[in-house]
Amino acid sequence: MLPWSADLAGRIDEHLFDSRLLADNPLGDPAQRPLWVYLPPGYDDDQATRYPTVYVIQGYTGHVRMWANRAPFRQPFLETADQVFADGSAPPCVLVYVDAWTSYGGSQFVDSGGTGRYHSYLCDEVVPWVDAHYRTIDAPASRAISGKSSGGFGAMITPMLRPDLFGALATHAGDTLYEHCYLPDFAAATRHLRGYGGDIWTWWDDFRSRPAMSKKEDESLLTALGCAAAFSPGDDGRPVLPFDPLTGVVDEEQWARWLAWDPVRMVDRYADALRGLRAIWIDAGDEDDYHLDLGAQAFRAGLDRIGVDESRVYFEIFPATHAAIDYRYPLALRWLAQRLER
Amino acid sequence: MLPWSADLAGRIDEHLFDSRLLADNPLGDPAQRPLWVYLPPGYDDDQATRYPTVYVIQGYTGHVRMWANRAPFRQPFLETADQVFADGSAPPCVLVYVDAWTSYGGSQFVDSGGTGRYHSYLCDEVVPWVDAHYRTIDAPASRAISGKSSGGFGAMITPMLRPDLFGALATHAGDTLYEHCYLPDFAAATRHLRGYGGDIWTWWDDFRSRPAMSKKEDESLLTALGCAAAFSPGDDGRPVLPFDPLTGVVDEEQWARWLAWDPVRMVDRYADALRGLRAIWIDAGDEDDYHLDLGAQAFRAGLDRIGVDESRVYFEIFPATHAAIDYRYPLALRWLAQRLER
Amino acid sequence: MLPWSADLAGRIDEHLFDSRLLADNPLGDPAQRPLWVYLPPGYDDDQATRYPTVYVIQGYTGHVRMWANRAPFRQPFLETADQVFADGSAPPCVLVYVDAWTSYGGSQFVDSGGTGRYHSYLCDEVVPWVDAHYRTIDAPASRAISGKSSGGFGAMITPMLRPDLFGALATHAGDTLYEHCYLPDFAAATRHLRGYGGDIWTWWDDFRSRPAMSKKEDESLLTALGCAAAFSPGDDGRPVLPFDPLTGVVDEEQWARWLAWDPVRMVDRYADALRGLRAIWIDAGDEDDYHLDLGAQAFRAGLDRIGVDESRVYFEIFPATHAAIDYRYPLALRWLAQRLER
Amino acid sequence: MLPWSADLAGRIDEHLFDSRLLADNPLGDPAQRPLWVYLPPGYDDDQATRYPTVYVIQGYTGHVRMWANRAPFRQPFLETADQVFADGSAPPCVLVYVDAWTSYGGSQFVDSGGTGRYHSYLCDEVVPWVDAHYRTIDAPASRAISGKSSGGFGAMITPMLRPDLFGALATHAGDTLYEHCYLPDFAAATRHLRGYGGDIWTWWDDFRSRPAMSKKEDESLLTALGCAAAFSPGDDGRPVLPFDPLTGVVDEEQWARWLAWDPVRMVDRYADALRGLRAIWIDAGDEDDYHLDLGAQAFRAGLDRIGVDESRVYFEIFPATHAAIDYRYPLALRWLAQRLER
Repeated sequence: MLPWSADLAGRIDEHLFDSRLLADNPLGDPAQRPLWVYLPPGYDDDQATRYPTVYVIQGYTGHVRMWANRAPFRQPFLETADQVFADGSAPPCVLVYVDAWTSYGGSQFVDSGGTGRYHSYLCDEVVPWVDAHYRTIDAPASRAISGKSSGGFGAMITPMLRPDLFGALATHAGDTLYEHCYLPDFAAATRHLRGYGGDIWTWWDDFRSRPAMSKKEDESLLTALGCAAAFSPGDDGRPVLPFDPLTGVVDEEQWARWLAWDPVRMVDRYADALRGLRAIWIDAGDEDDYHLDLGAQAFRAGLDRIGVDESRVYFEIFPATHAAIDYRYPLALRWLAQRLER
Repeated sequence: MLPWSADLAGRIDEHLFDSRLLADNPLGDPAQRPLWVYLPPGYDDDQATRYPTVYVIQGYTGHVRMWANRAPFRQPFLETADQVFADGSAPPCVLVYVDAWTSYGGSQFVDSGGTGRYHSYLCDEVVPWVDAHYRTIDAPASRAISGKSSGGFGAMITPMLRPDLFGALATHAGDTLYEHCYLPDFAAATRHLRGYGGDIWTWWDDFRSRPAMSKKEDESLLTALGCAAAFSPGDDGRPVLPFDPLTGVVDEEQWARWLAWDPVRMVDRYADALRGLRAIWIDAGDEDDYHLDLGAQAFRAGLDRIGVDESRVYFEIFPATHAAIDYRYPLALRWLAQRLER
Repeated sequence: MLPWSADLAGRIDEHLFDSRLLADNPLGDPAQRPLWVYLPPGYDDDQATRYPTVYVIQGYTGHVRMWANRAPFRQPFLETADQVFADGSAPPCVLVYVDAWTSYGGSQFVDSGGTGRYHSYLCDEVVPWVDAHYRTIDAPASRAISGKSSGGFGAMITPMLRPDLFGALATHAGDTLYEHCYLPDFAAATRHLRGYGGDIWTWWDDFRSRPAMSKKEDESLLTALGCAAAFSPGDDGRPVLPFDPLTGVVDEEQWARWLAWDPVRMVDRYADALRGLRAIWIDAGDEDDYHLDLGAQAFRAGLDRIGVDESRVYFEIFPATHAAIDYRYPLALRWLAQRLER
Repeated sequence: MLPWSADLAGRIDEHLFDSRLLADNPLGDPAQRPLWVYLPPGYDDDQATRYPTVYVIQGYTGHVRMWANRAPFRQPFLETADQVFADGSAPPCVLVYVDAWTSYGGSQFVDSGGTGRYHSYLCDEVVPWVDAHYRTIDAPASRAISGKSSGGFGAMITPMLRPDLFGALATHAGDTLYEHCYLPDFAAATRHLRGYGGDIWTWWDDFRSRPAMSKKEDESLLTALGCAAAFSPGDDGRPVLPFDPLTGVVDEEQWARWLAWDPVRMVDRYADALRGLRAIWIDAGDEDDYHLDLGAQAFRAGLDRIGVDESRVYFEIFPATHAAIDYRYPLALRWLAQRLER
């Protein structure tokens, strides 16, 4: 009964996935991961039907169990996604909730010497396993990926890297246009590090020794560390910050490694992949805390520039900050479900 | 496995409680409520032992299922509370998680013609039922109540009203000193109502017709409505705002009804009850968004004034805002558990 | 030449006024005050014409010389006021710039044992002197007062107290509705005083020993001190704060003394005076930092309630904060000049 | 009498300077400029003595007359500078207040096809004229330049470009480290331009048609326009923004033109000039709104890197934002006066 819970029209299988690719990851994070598979209403009734799949990934610091979190006056996406199919407004899909959490809060869904092979885990382990164990349609035209924030970033880059797997995406306030989403925080981070002698590892030791997220500096320093782990790990796997922690001066060499992962800057390199997608949903709040509305606009402008067919793109800047925009997810899911090949 | 879950040393019974007192409540909210009872490690082993109980209540817009929400790098109180007993740092208690959610977001744990009889539900239905169904010690010296924000308010007033039931409390950033915690928001609310013709019901209709909490005004207007439902309902049960929605001018008559529920102002009226408590934990963050650090200081000063024995009071202003202070809950729980009679 | 300066069509006489009433004021502030009198174009040509006067007063911490301050891309009111007459859009008036600065930053234009007799200085010394030395029309229907912020407050209360002198007023974001303009700052002030052992005099000593206004706490503590000097001085003339500096609890007795000076609350007591005014300009920015837009709305609602003729009132809430609204002053001046009797 | 005015121990000559170099500047701004020369106490007494000079320049939107502005509880630099010499704490200097205002608010003290030849005006017109008309010591070791914000920028670059003229400098929160001081505002500017169809000229027309600085967007758009006029004018002299106004994407070509003027990045190119300076004062508030504390740290680190003798540098990060730091100016003036050759 609401607000406490809701019965699903479909059902969710909760798996523990033993990843070979995440074994011995540099952070010593678990190689066994929760993997949730949602089966839409009707899945069990007609054993002949095969379904498109939508992979769902999370923002920074998210892990799969947080999909069950309940917020005031709202239902979790687990339930609002189910409603999209239950109310018949979109044809059924299988949804796959993938976990890519790390000790730094996230992986950015890339393969990195700093965190592990989360991109490959998703593409080369989870996707084949899902296709082997569920009645999915194993074709990029029938497979989408969706996420918010860092998850939106993952949803943008994964089909660029693997158009053989993913033919559609939805990005809600996805990390992009790094000069406006990441760079401003380097100044804050530099100031915060004054209290730690300019050494992020001193902060990191402090962070792990007390209630996490209990100091003002935690969020920006954690993000800096985690993104550096993803984008600019050193040869030894230790994150290398893309700025001088004593002055905030950008380290152009490391920063270039980050920018190589900026979806706006990747558009031209991956133009063929992007032109091959059948559905691209882009949205963001007009007051997004990380200026991801600008990133959304820039990413869309990039798609225009390389000649992506406008009819395949949904774009909206809506009134919001970066927070509390989960009500957008089912809108994109419905739109994707209507466009995936079946 | 963390961060996704943790095994408990104790266990939790999830009940659905059919309340007679909440039946036909004015908002038509469910009379059947989730009620979670935590039994500490050892409870099932020795059938002769009886335990003190700690009732746990939530902040505004909270409902019982949110206790299971997981936040980054933290464990839910369900788990950190368990650790208090599992690690032996405090003697075992039974914990009771009570739901007092309403359509306006909360009840303030009072009996009100605007929302329902949530105070009586807690005191006259839940407490006797728990004592009847679990091996508790049915005595105020062995029964505490604890909460944050509106839950901290509930934890302050419930023992004042019912010293025959509760002999200890913990308030984390509890609502009090209303000139600083509620009044400032009336100005914001008045401005917000400009967009609704000065009519909060026009906003309320709008609020229910779209994704909740998706507009800037939602939080302050919801709080105003919910507190008015609790503290200043009209004869017909409809909340009466304690300010003129066109000018922000305080309505002294309605405001006096709110102030009658200000714990700081209740101290003298309930001095005997407060002097009889064996343990009072008061804390708040020094930058609390609602100035509840001042409220905490004022409440403590009130206890001093009426002669509450200092040895029974724990008081701390710690560095924090109103958010992310759940790591304080197990600290207070341990302190209470050590002081409850057994 | 602009932006550096502009030639006036009229001219300004800069006087030093030796006040008898300010002699031996409690703060030892100068009894000799600058007094600037602006004479409109034509004043010197036709020696027979007499003019209405508009008295101009300033916001908190203002003194007369600040009228000459230049802001980017704007001209000072000394010049924009002159333009109102130079361009013929309003008939000429004499303007009188009155100084009511004190060591605490201001006087609120009242007589107070805490600061001095600034109300009487204005009404009983400056007004008669101006009428004696310039060709003014000595009648309330031909005399207005205008100001912003604390000056707006002064412009509201002075005609209430002295309808025999002032028959018109303009208040821009005038201090009023004290529960929303002053009370919220008491919480901030209480927190700031933690660093001073809860003693505002410790802060005051510190304030005077270093560059003024160089700490975050300076503004709110200075305002608290100055308003207490104006509204709630002790028998010894020392300001008594209307709140407990250790807890923020409002001191109802002292607070009542402040509220007795709240223009919104004064409306009924001075209804006759207000009904006798021929022109009342009220405006404020819709995001005024001190919620003086609400105060403006409440003051106007009060005028409606007591039956002030709507045709005599100009009311506008415009898009702005409390800052940078000096461009409103000439609008009100023009409107007043057109309505003063001549 | 304070707070209204103070008598100077020295005196100020107010000149109007007819500039040949500013004639026919692209914005049609006046070629006749106010130029104020301060002569220290004793200057008129001993006609044989020659003095070091300190040139004083202003922040963005400043013009010379604003030096006379009075702020609450403070004296203008005109007076606090005089006190440095009047109280004998530093040997006397001549001070020169130079105006470099433009229609966009400022010139950044550079020669630009977008605004005019303000650098040459200062170096090739004002300096020789001052030396010709006053008893100064015409040598770089006896000539310093000082300023705040954009004036601090001017104080950094002018001696780099003209070590033959200037041998010392003081920068208070000077514009530098552009990725942290300018770039963050491009995101805000892009959002603001949504309301103007992405066209800054539409905003500029609007800006000039109404009270200036009366909309939230004015400050960031004005700065963007003015800096583009200084650093990235087009061939036709029209400012070219260094970002796409529809997406916020940085225009690397134009941005490189800005970065060529970043003092932190200029250090190596002008290492010889910097190593030749006898005194360099660098300070900034630790919460500077434009992160100029980081810029200060980076500039100082640059000086260290190129081998500037530490004994010639004063460096301090003090508690402040970007506002209200004028009390720092006389501290730097005293320090410079003690080090200039005489």
